[in-house]
Amino acid sequence: MSGLLRLTIVLLLLAGARPGWADPPPLSEESATCVACHETFQPGLVTDWQRSRHASTTPAAGLAKPVLQRRISATAVPAAQRDVAVGCYECHGALPDAGADRFEHFGTVIHTVVTPRDCAGCHPTEVTEYDGSKKAHAVGNLDQNPVYHGLVNTVLAPQTLRDGALQSTPPSAATRAATCFACHGTTVEVTGKRTVPHELGDFELPVLSGWPNQGVGRINPDGSRGSCSSCHARHRFDLAVARSPETCSECHLEPDTPAWEVYRESKHGNLWFVNQASQVRDAVPWRPGPDFQYPTCATCHNSLLVGPDDTVLAPRSHDFGARLWVRLFGLPYAHPQPRSGATHTIRNAAGQPLPTTLDNQPASEHLIDAATAASRQATMTKVCSACHSSTWSQGHFAKLDQTIAETNQLTLAATQLLQLGYARGRADPTNLFDESIERAWVRQWMFYANSTRYGAAMCGQDYSTFKNGWFQLGSNLLAMQDWLRDGKAKAEE
Amino acid sequence: MSGLLRLTIVLLLLAGARPGWADPPPLSEESATCVACHETFQPGLVTDWQRSRHASTTPAAGLAKPVLQRRISATAVPAAQRDVAVGCYECHGALPDAGADRFEHFGTVIHTVVTPRDCAGCHPTEVTEYDGSKKAHAVGNLDQNPVYHGLVNTVLAPQTLRDGALQSTPPSAATRAATCFACHGTTVEVTGKRTVPHELGDFELPVLSGWPNQGVGRINPDGSRGSCSSCHARHRFDLAVARSPETCSECHLEPDTPAWEVYRESKHGNLWFVNQASQVRDAVPWRPGPDFQYPTCATCHNSLLVGPDDTVLAPRSHDFGARLWVRLFGLPYAHPQPRSGATHTIRNAAGQPLPTTLDNQPASEHLIDAATAASRQATMTKVCSACHSSTWSQGHFAKLDQTIAETNQLTLAATQLLQLGYARGRADPTNLFDESIERAWVRQWMFYANSTRYGAAMCGQDYSTFKNGWFQLGSNLLAMQDWLRDGKAKAEE
Amino acid sequence: MSGLLRLTIVLLLLAGARPGWADPPPLSEESATCVACHETFQPGLVTDWQRSRHASTTPAAGLAKPVLQRRISATAVPAAQRDVAVGCYECHGALPDAGADRFEHFGTVIHTVVTPRDCAGCHPTEVTEYDGSKKAHAVGNLDQNPVYHGLVNTVLAPQTLRDGALQSTPPSAATRAATCFACHGTTVEVTGKRTVPHELGDFELPVLSGWPNQGVGRINPDGSRGSCSSCHARHRFDLAVARSPETCSECHLEPDTPAWEVYRESKHGNLWFVNQASQVRDAVPWRPGPDFQYPTCATCHNSLLVGPDDTVLAPRSHDFGARLWVRLFGLPYAHPQPRSGATHTIRNAAGQPLPTTLDNQPASEHLIDAATAASRQATMTKVCSACHSSTWSQGHFAKLDQTIAETNQLTLAATQLLQLGYARGRADPTNLFDESIERAWVRQWMFYANSTRYGAAMCGQDYSTFKNGWFQLGSNLLAMQDWLRDGKAKAEE
Repeated sequence: MSGLLRLTIVLLLLAGARPGWADPPPLSEESATCVACHETFQPGLVTDWQRSRHASTTPAAGLAKPVLQRRISATAVPAAQRDVAVGCYECHGALPDAGADRFEHFGTVIHTVVTPRDCAGCHPTEVTEYDGSKKAHAVGNLDQNPVYHGLVNTVLAPQTLRDGALQSTPPSAATRAATCFACHGTTVEVTGKRTVPHELGDFELPVLSGWPNQGVGRINPDGSRGSCSSCHARHRFDLAVARSPETCSECHLEPDTPAWEVYRESKHGNLWFVNQASQVRDAVPWRPGPDFQYPTCATCHNSLLVGPDDTVLAPRSHDFGARLWVRLFGLPYAHPQPRSGATHTIRNAAGQPLPTTLDNQPASEHLIDAATAASRQATMTKVCSACHSSTWSQGHFAKLDQTIAETNQLTLAATQLLQLGYARGRADPTNLFDESIERAWVRQWMFYANSTRYGAAMCGQDYSTFKNGWFQLGSNLLAMQDWLRDGKAKAEE
Repeated sequence: MSGLLRLTIVLLLLAGARPGWADPPPLSEESATCVACHETFQPGLVTDWQRSRHASTTPAAGLAKPVLQRRISATAVPAAQRDVAVGCYECHGALPDAGADRFEHFGTVIHTVVTPRDCAGCHPTEVTEYDGSKKAHAVGNLDQNPVYHGLVNTVLAPQTLRDGALQSTPPSAATRAATCFACHGTTVEVTGKRTVPHELGDFELPVLSGWPNQGVGRINPDGSRGSCSSCHARHRFDLAVARSPETCSECHLEPDTPAWEVYRESKHGNLWFVNQASQVRDAVPWRPGPDFQYPTCATCHNSLLVGPDDTVLAPRSHDFGARLWVRLFGLPYAHPQPRSGATHTIRNAAGQPLPTTLDNQPASEHLIDAATAASRQATMTKVCSACHSSTWSQGHFAKLDQTIAETNQLTLAATQLLQLGYARGRADPTNLFDESIERAWVRQWMFYANSTRYGAAMCGQDYSTFKNGWFQLGSNLLAMQDWLRDGKAKAEE
Repeated sequence: MSGLLRLTIVLLLLAGARPGWADPPPLSEESATCVACHETFQPGLVTDWQRSRHASTTPAAGLAKPVLQRRISATAVPAAQRDVAVGCYECHGALPDAGADRFEHFGTVIHTVVTPRDCAGCHPTEVTEYDGSKKAHAVGNLDQNPVYHGLVNTVLAPQTLRDGALQSTPPSAATRAATCFACHGTTVEVTGKRTVPHELGDFELPVLSGWPNQGVGRINPDGSRGSCSSCHARHRFDLAVARSPETCSECHLEPDTPAWEVYRESKHGNLWFVNQASQVRDAVPWRPGPDFQYPTCATCHNSLLVGPDDTVLAPRSHDFGARLWVRLFGLPYAHPQPRSGATHTIRNAAGQPLPTTLDNQPASEHLIDAATAASRQATMTKVCSACHSSTWSQGHFAKLDQTIAETNQLTLAATQLLQLGYARGRADPTNLFDESIERAWVRQWMFYANSTRYGAAMCGQDYSTFKNGWFQLGSNLLAMQDWLRDGKAKAEE
């Protein structure tokens, strides 16, 4: 029985890492007031928060942990927040003068949209890392890049038939928000006020444009960029959620960025999904071996991984490109990662806001150099090494390099077919996206080349072969050649 | 170690509600006989039932529960069934004179096909609700609607090549059953008898056409419509199954109705799949907060949801359209929900059995009015309010309204291109579905407009953008315009 | 309460069958040495193995089990391996003279690539069964079959534009390995040596071509065929993984072999995924009823299934075609299963290496006869009978037969359209795969007919209808007819 007791204590300690078991810390007076009403009106939301680590610990307790175990990167937290749970008011009110969306609500000034600026009170390092990343600039990288702005505006334009021809009008804000900018992020602005009738007394709320939205590059009413809840959803902010592949899958999906599908079909995904109940998903640091044996997206791309004897295999980063040396998707050609997350500032040799010219000459001064690339690949190889030999990793990366070279070549062939068509008057280069043959060209790189590269990078061979892979790359080229040759058949699939 | 086991048992008893651990109730004599043989011959099936609530409780125990907790809607149950488990005979034999498929089996008269009429003995309210729904009429809504009947007959027609041209023959019953009517439901009829040789003595069984099938509108040998096992599968009839999104996914899949894919990629789906082990799926009533924090299909569409203090947020309904005001899919244009589940009885201004004309004039007398629509949206908003503010819900529904308007506009453009083609003799309007350009038109509304709307309705932006969304809506229009303009290129993607 | 449940589950796991909790058996001296270093350098890999059955039992303990419970098919194991755990050295070194990839590593001769020949030490029956299967011959069945070799070489050929026309070069080894042969298997050969600098002293490793790879027909350095880790991944070799559908899904995916998608959407998949936490996945034998109520791929296709009183419902087989009578995919026409796994040796009446001629005359002498087919169907029916009546199974198989006949007919129509095109000079029969119309023909059988048949075979109606099903079969025929008729429009979708 003493063995049982010992076992029970061990189990309780194990269970203890899980929030909710210990006595919860006190709430600030403001947060207690919020909960008192909202647990009746939004019971799902409030329970979600109550089961969070935010509800079950305090910043002071976080600061007292050894550095490797800390989930808080601030070295100090204001006194008012230090010894209370991280409650409603701490996030929705602690910086009451920050955003234009603040309003008075039953005696307290709060704001609807919690932004990275709010989170930075306890997590400044993460916010800073993120702010320099491509994700943080995801709005500008579409809207301020004339090529991508043209793509968005052409694809999302409502069309009507006039005199037998299609005519376009500009995209609506609602459609932008329901499509591209659902992932990239909207611009959230206060456009007015409205009165909400309520049994406890009518109250006013700001009217927000571009809301709701949790796009990764959201422009917030306080001017900050990003939405931590893109990944740390929703009021539980559970690390287990952020580290689960389902979270990344909200945006990284076929046909343009099939990271989810490729991962799911890979051996990594296979083993994760079969064994996920036995994988510890919320430990900090995260230890390959004791905590988990099978990786998720976060394992390879951004989590702090620690080996035996506390050796850091890979540091945490909230710039999700920090371990990547090549950029596989989103542009006609794979190319070295950009130096700045604000990719719309790039200019290539042809003056276009693209990291390569249309015949694949890289804008090298805007891209990382070979030494940086090698250093990032070395970090990634260290992640691989938790389970794989160097023979394995080297063989894998060699395959990927070849795939990158060949898919770039197949995009170049498609581009040249299109350009020949322009030269022969078969198509009009004014708008790159508003003719059938141009859509075929877009499919070549945005769907087929991207998919083929993802498949090679993460071992999802279906996506390199028959599912938007080599079969489609080749069929599309044949169709584009048919179009060029006789002007009769048109490009397809 | 025995102490550990004892503790485990105590903890299991404390953990409580799992059916099957308490002493099971007595079986009727008939059911006990069934089990005695079939646990040898169909051990999987029998175990499935043994782990069901049906096996571990009685109608009497169900009737004794407070109303909100009841899973039985009858107010009385015949004496023979009241105090025994709901066993084989209670469902397969209790109404022996009901269906043409009844037969004598080792001394007892039973029937193979359990129908809503059988289930209504204990669950009459659910059966009545269901019987008025579109699901219950899913067979007639295809077969008795001349337009849809034409679609089915054209798409499923085996084709052969004669003198260089394709020729069609009518679809086979087997192919109908393996495709459209697998979801919509077959007509199950007794077509004869057969003798089964058996070690316990040969016996006769009815031969059934259209069997097996669990389509939602199945026409049963007793004349009833539907198959409760569509969702309450199979012999466990587990509420956890009916409420899990995988169940709905058997039919609501891309490219025509991508509800599963859109949910899976949404934040709702993300949070559900990562956290499903901690979500209580079989509580009645179902409480946002204590029971679950993340919704499934059933949460929003039909389950009884109860807030703190037993406030009913949304009543249970087995008419799955009961909380819906607009119909997003299945027809060329999104439109107000039909008044009757038997949509094949609708006639629009052009006399067609469609809820709108081909240029989108609604057949309003067959559709719900604005007040009903508003009332349904208010109910849905109450479901949202368990976790979301009204600012959130209003912003979401405003986006959806715009998506509906614009996708209808893009379907209209495609329809007009097709009609111009008819007018110019480029296509033949006799059959709406047997030419390539007509298939492009079908893809426009059935695949692309539907997907775009689903994506907007349930936050799966991929399906509104690049995966059968705006990109494809526009590319398809360009291809249809190419076809119309020069008669050379044909419509595609 | 959920915390209590979680504790209970932990206690149950402690009380129960989970390998790894009991005292582990001794390691061989060699394996102990491996672990001493590699638990530092590859903690993920070593932990994975430590949680395996291999680490927690010995061959002797396996041999002592009753036959039905044995996971080892050898009747004797060499003394050196008999009483130690199955550790690193037992698999990577026990046959040191077998493969060309052996090398000396800190005093021990080992090899990187563990092959079926290594596994045969304990699992000879499985290896023999597998070696005769189509999977084991998956490399030759592509590369030594001229038709398929042509498909591979055409689809994977990098293309460049010269003088306005596409020109091909042969596929690279890397691209072959990242696509077709990722599933089918590479040829792994030693191409040299390299020196690895290391803190414990530099060491040499063989350089391997075609590595890493776990394709099912991998040609190993020791000349054997296959990779047991295709399914028994990775160092845990967990039966629960091999029996989980995610494992099969690494290769059996849409659009060519949508087994995963069809299963996932079927009622089988629905029930499995909702209930998998309660399904015992690693029992030997595997008992429908007590162990599981819902089947996975392995249940129906290869696992040893045992009913009450230890009746064998279906014997285990590692020839995954052993219970199949008809071959649904991979070839233009569904046809009786081939007699030999080495399908590239088949010659049809036209002398082609295909199991049917292009107008669907079977090469019967290479295919199983009717009696064998009937016997296999009887075995499969026994599997069904664990949960389904014979009425059910017969109805199901009747539907499938009709689907096979009709999809073959639709492939024939497409083939005849293509052949008419050849006859009229519209296409060039020299290479069957390098023109747009030929790609349409490939899609007809490889994507659409296959999907339709999978959907019918495993109840995934979406794949028989709108998702690469009848809709696409018919649209593709219309497009091919357009192409033939006026040479203007080209085949698509």
